[in-house]
Amino acid sequence: MKAQRVEMYVCPMSSPSDTSGLQNLADEGKIRPETLVALVGKTEGTGAHDDWGRVWADVALREWTAKFCGIPVADVAKQVIFVLSGGCPGVITPHIAAVTREWVEAPDSGDDKRLVVGRAGSEAIAPEEVGRMGQIRKVATATRAAMSDAGLTDPHDVHLVMVKVPGLTVASIRDAESRGQTVVSHDLTFGPEGAGSYANDAAALGVAMALGEVPESALSDEVVRRKWELYSEVAMTSSGGEKRHGEVVVFGNSAGSRSPLRIGHAVTKDFIDAEGVRTALRSAGVKFNGGLPDEGDLSRLVHVFAKSVIPGSDQIRGQRITLLDDTDAYQIGKALGGMLIASVTGRTTNYVSGGERNSHQGPPGGNIVAAVVRV
Amino acid sequence: MKAQRVEMYVCPMSSPSDTSGLQNLADEGKIRPETLVALVGKTEGTGAHDDWGRVWADVALREWTAKFCGIPVADVAKQVIFVLSGGCPGVITPHIAAVTREWVEAPDSGDDKRLVVGRAGSEAIAPEEVGRMGQIRKVATATRAAMSDAGLTDPHDVHLVMVKVPGLTVASIRDAESRGQTVVSHDLTFGPEGAGSYANDAAALGVAMALGEVPESALSDEVVRRKWELYSEVAMTSSGGEKRHGEVVVFGNSAGSRSPLRIGHAVTKDFIDAEGVRTALRSAGVKFNGGLPDEGDLSRLVHVFAKSVIPGSDQIRGQRITLLDDTDAYQIGKALGGMLIASVTGRTTNYVSGGERNSHQGPPGGNIVAAVVRV
Amino acid sequence: MKAQRVEMYVCPMSSPSDTSGLQNLADEGKIRPETLVALVGKTEGTGAHDDWGRVWADVALREWTAKFCGIPVADVAKQVIFVLSGGCPGVITPHIAAVTREWVEAPDSGDDKRLVVGRAGSEAIAPEEVGRMGQIRKVATATRAAMSDAGLTDPHDVHLVMVKVPGLTVASIRDAESRGQTVVSHDLTFGPEGAGSYANDAAALGVAMALGEVPESALSDEVVRRKWELYSEVAMTSSGGEKRHGEVVVFGNSAGSRSPLRIGHAVTKDFIDAEGVRTALRSAGVKFNGGLPDEGDLSRLVHVFAKSVIPGSDQIRGQRITLLDDTDAYQIGKALGGMLIASVTGRTTNYVSGGERNSHQGPPGGNIVAAVVRV
Amino acid sequence: MKAQRVEMYVCPMSSPSDTSGLQNLADEGKIRPETLVALVGKTEGTGAHDDWGRVWADVALREWTAKFCGIPVADVAKQVIFVLSGGCPGVITPHIAAVTREWVEAPDSGDDKRLVVGRAGSEAIAPEEVGRMGQIRKVATATRAAMSDAGLTDPHDVHLVMVKVPGLTVASIRDAESRGQTVVSHDLTFGPEGAGSYANDAAALGVAMALGEVPESALSDEVVRRKWELYSEVAMTSSGGEKRHGEVVVFGNSAGSRSPLRIGHAVTKDFIDAEGVRTALRSAGVKFNGGLPDEGDLSRLVHVFAKSVIPGSDQIRGQRITLLDDTDAYQIGKALGGMLIASVTGRTTNYVSGGERNSHQGPPGGNIVAAVVRV
Repeated sequence: MKAQRVEMYVCPMSSPSDTSGLQNLADEGKIRPETLVALVGKTEGTGAHDDWGRVWADVALREWTAKFCGIPVADVAKQVIFVLSGGCPGVITPHIAAVTREWVEAPDSGDDKRLVVGRAGSEAIAPEEVGRMGQIRKVATATRAAMSDAGLTDPHDVHLVMVKVPGLTVASIRDAESRGQTVVSHDLTFGPEGAGSYANDAAALGVAMALGEVPESALSDEVVRRKWELYSEVAMTSSGGEKRHGEVVVFGNSAGSRSPLRIGHAVTKDFIDAEGVRTALRSAGVKFNGGLPDEGDLSRLVHVFAKSVIPGSDQIRGQRITLLDDTDAYQIGKALGGMLIASVTGRTTNYVSGGERNSHQGPPGGNIVAAVVRV
Repeated sequence: MKAQRVEMYVCPMSSPSDTSGLQNLADEGKIRPETLVALVGKTEGTGAHDDWGRVWADVALREWTAKFCGIPVADVAKQVIFVLSGGCPGVITPHIAAVTREWVEAPDSGDDKRLVVGRAGSEAIAPEEVGRMGQIRKVATATRAAMSDAGLTDPHDVHLVMVKVPGLTVASIRDAESRGQTVVSHDLTFGPEGAGSYANDAAALGVAMALGEVPESALSDEVVRRKWELYSEVAMTSSGGEKRHGEVVVFGNSAGSRSPLRIGHAVTKDFIDAEGVRTALRSAGVKFNGGLPDEGDLSRLVHVFAKSVIPGSDQIRGQRITLLDDTDAYQIGKALGGMLIASVTGRTTNYVSGGERNSHQGPPGGNIVAAVVRV
Repeated sequence: MKAQRVEMYVCPMSSPSDTSGLQNLADEGKIRPETLVALVGKTEGTGAHDDWGRVWADVALREWTAKFCGIPVADVAKQVIFVLSGGCPGVITPHIAAVTREWVEAPDSGDDKRLVVGRAGSEAIAPEEVGRMGQIRKVATATRAAMSDAGLTDPHDVHLVMVKVPGLTVASIRDAESRGQTVVSHDLTFGPEGAGSYANDAAALGVAMALGEVPESALSDEVVRRKWELYSEVAMTSSGGEKRHGEVVVFGNSAGSRSPLRIGHAVTKDFIDAEGVRTALRSAGVKFNGGLPDEGDLSRLVHVFAKSVIPGSDQIRGQRITLLDDTDAYQIGKALGGMLIASVTGRTTNYVSGGERNSHQGPPGGNIVAAVVRV
Repeated sequence: MKAQRVEMYVCPMSSPSDTSGLQNLADEGKIRPETLVALVGKTEGTGAHDDWGRVWADVALREWTAKFCGIPVADVAKQVIFVLSGGCPGVITPHIAAVTREWVEAPDSGDDKRLVVGRAGSEAIAPEEVGRMGQIRKVATATRAAMSDAGLTDPHDVHLVMVKVPGLTVASIRDAESRGQTVVSHDLTFGPEGAGSYANDAAALGVAMALGEVPESALSDEVVRRKWELYSEVAMTSSGGEKRHGEVVVFGNSAGSRSPLRIGHAVTKDFIDAEGVRTALRSAGVKFNGGLPDEGDLSRLVHVFAKSVIPGSDQIRGQRITLLDDTDAYQIGKALGGMLIASVTGRTTNYVSGGERNSHQGPPGGNIVAAVVRV
């Protein structure tokens, strides 16, 4: 029987174009052109849509990957999925995580479930579908395909779904309207009524639909960014105007895996819930001694993925905060998520994205945390 | 024998001019004109030197206090010390803590040390002394006087010293230079070479000298903001150009106290050291169950005072962070301190000031945390 | 025949609560309780909705006015209209302009039209009307009433209409939805889809409707913040959640006025159109010698009122700019308007509000400039 | 006789890595490997020291130039001088200006002075010399060498000197101190006491010394960033820690030039002095009709170079401004300079650098403006 063997290597980056960590992995034979399936990372820069740190990192990483794989830059996207999240304010170390997958001949491993990864692209998503049921359904379909690619059938085995979908642009709005269609918003930002927020949140609901977290019957155009009680516990989504198709990467645990890694997740109950972060790490197998992982367990913790969505309310545990009014709430909100994770893991190489206000990624006020641990 | 009885009440504020919490305390008889000794708080606003939220709060609180005490506004400063720290980015609830002290007839309480508070003003500090030995010595003298006022003799019983000193202004620099004197800096900001930073740090060294944390022989003009291994573990200092005299409030524990409260402190080892925060709370008597206080112990935790000075290095536990380069490092640095404390206390009404880069307030990279607990 | 005599005095402020300029005017007898009709100013601070500089200024100015007029603070709004615009980034001097009106017995002055001012309140505007036809119509009605109060009948004589309307709040949205109504947006900001922007822009269209700049038949809920070719050339509007009624102040020229002042206006064609600013000043009677007013004419220029709305396009005269992507576009956009005016007037005490993106206040890309000149 | 023929082509850039404008010039034969001497531009991004837009532009432009010239990237600096100024807030179009120089056989052109350009490197500048007389003297020597390379002997013919010098870094400070030397500042920023500001300003004084604007006898370590009445009217300087040698480019007019271009300059008297900008353009030969260039003259205006240093005072023409306290004064100060120039030229492709506070680049409160015009 063919079994997956998935590995994940986290490389700190000294600048947006630093590929030396990947090159070291390549030189050591840890990543090979035929095993590299995804690059997931945090890049330093403003985190805004014109974050040149992220753009430059994307260019540099694609060039490196093309050379590494011996393929044209234009073909890199077909072979390796890139998820680059811009902005490392505070205590988030810029880094790139390389995910590899190889297939090994192995007997069924029994009940001991280990990390698997699967990928899929969605059908093309039209501008008028962005942030609406059209997008939700196409992301749901792609999520199911990625589960299938991962060899996962039970949604409970899925612990992290990273999705990239098309957003809206001036050009795509013009295209839709020239065909007599409407679009979900003319605000191109990630603000409360921004197209970017709608795209991200419809993607999250697509994941929720695929995993049965939300029944299709509860979904409609009207619930997106309105009914916050509908959400996914495992979807981390992003959107960009330059794409027409969605991309989905699913991480889960499977008995049919020979990986030395395992993934777990949990959601925090509110913005300062360090215990929720510990719960996520425990679910992946980390043991705690007081507030921090046991010394040995920290070395077994491969990586943490977390969202840091700003709550919609100005109250935390009954007290008022001014975060919603902070001039730079987007940066501060992301930075605070970085600190919450670092205060629990005791290190700074964590993947933390966020800063947006409210989301179907995780419950109202809470955030998704997933952890990958070496068994 | 006369013994102190000190109380501390924390009132969340719904706006910079919100004195309703104080009025409630007054109505309930918890604070009285003759017992109110200090108001210490965090005010919402930009945290910059022209933070109108803080200025307005100061005006409103002084007016309220004058009316409460039945004295002119100009006399309030003689009776009640104000320490208002501007800026509540992230998860720091705007609040004011009222500190009261009364004298009760009581037998010596033996070894059970409880909270005492003492205050003192310094001699006038000339502009040419700011950030230099002149200021260090005058703050040291005032710290000793405040210890005496608190009834404290052993520096180990001192857990928090809040100091306000004069900074430099365009006018005071002109004054000094017209008399043939030099000043420590022409930069009036809290930047690395700013007069505000020099004033704060000389104040911290003054506390360190008074408490014997740094021998006077190790001190000179040259070490201020240069020799970071010289520092106080208990000094939280601020400076403002409008003043000529320093003000010192000392908090400590004394066997000659009848307070229901106790104070403790510790310093964190680095910027993400949640365990260091727990150590501070434990030192005051809080018990932890895992990462958070026992349910009952949280209700006993009256208040936490913490600094959040940004480290001078771009490395935390061997990994690079970009905090020093963040556009808004001052805000983000302060906000991150708020999250670190909140992640441990599980609440947001914490006094967290900071954002400046490097300081003699606490060790290099680490920060001071003090906690007041109901026994 | 009764004729208006309107005066306008501009007082720089040294802090948000500085009322010394107004007190001087009062001491000199230039403003009297029965003649003061409006206070219009720029206050220093963040310019955000929680701009404590503006809030504090509002409190201080209302207290001063109450004492000056011998009325309770709560009654000030009935007697004097306040228009305080927060944020003076760059080269905008914080200031308050006092507008007085008295009635003098005078023969008709013939063709020489001079400054008149009129005020009116609108009917209560329900949350579901904000940003929609309901608000547009009510502002139009109030604008006509204010014209009537000013003694103006010809819309061509109207050169500046300042309007304050209710915005939306969490509470007012809840109220509307509990009654089965919808609201124009759940985004409470001044962003592209923000309720604040919708409220401001519906107010501008209300003025346009009253003045015949836009026919009522062209107006509907759907055109607000969509059809930018519909706009007013004289409306400067703002909104705040705390109000239920709109307030309107109209400035114009009338033959039935005995004022020593005259007003004029023009709109700029784009964001860098200094010549458009000169056209506005010329329309009020300022003469130019090259790019700047004649020396004598500058002293005759009493005040300039200008909007600085950010263009919706990233092109100016065929070249790309990055203003739309600037992190702090709101501040920078306002600051740039201040520089454009100052570069033409040669002084910094100008009323410049703005920073929002796109508006029905002025034509697409252009901005409104009005000037008051001593004849 | 050999005469210079200098050309300057301004290419708007659509992104930091956009080299299409240069490629077009190359394709049209306007720039050739042997004629390209300098690339001077404004790049979009944060303008901070970790401005990845500028860094990426630098990488992309050097790669393009290496390919264009047929040389290794490492050799580009020897052949083409790069001056990239980061940050285009507001109305500054990102662009690159290519400067070419070729030598033509020509009789002396008589009194009609035309544009020449000259370049020179300085001796290595040690860290302990940065911001002090050592640097001043070496920049002065290099400025004289660049004048010589340009064929200029009379300082009055010099209208713009662009200088890049080494700044300080953590490493270079350590190097100096390990050798028992001191450095001018430990603040690595461009703040009032920052090493970057000292380096820039010593470079400006070096130019002033070379051109006789300031006598060497008036110069000393102590005057740098203290005696603001010492300044250059033509120096635009920048510094970066990565370099050991200074680079100087001199632009002037010479009778021995066959260029179709001429340069002129002036300094503004204060931050809003549009007339000073017009004076600079007039000095290069632009004619004005009112506040803007004649239609035809605008097409003859090739480029404007301007500084936008923030004044040290909070007063402009007797009125207070809050620019010095603006949170983002660095960005706003730069943006305002862009508007001041655009309000006079009527276009946005202007080179405007600045944002720092006070400088020996231009007189106190004023700024340098140079213009290149097609004759």
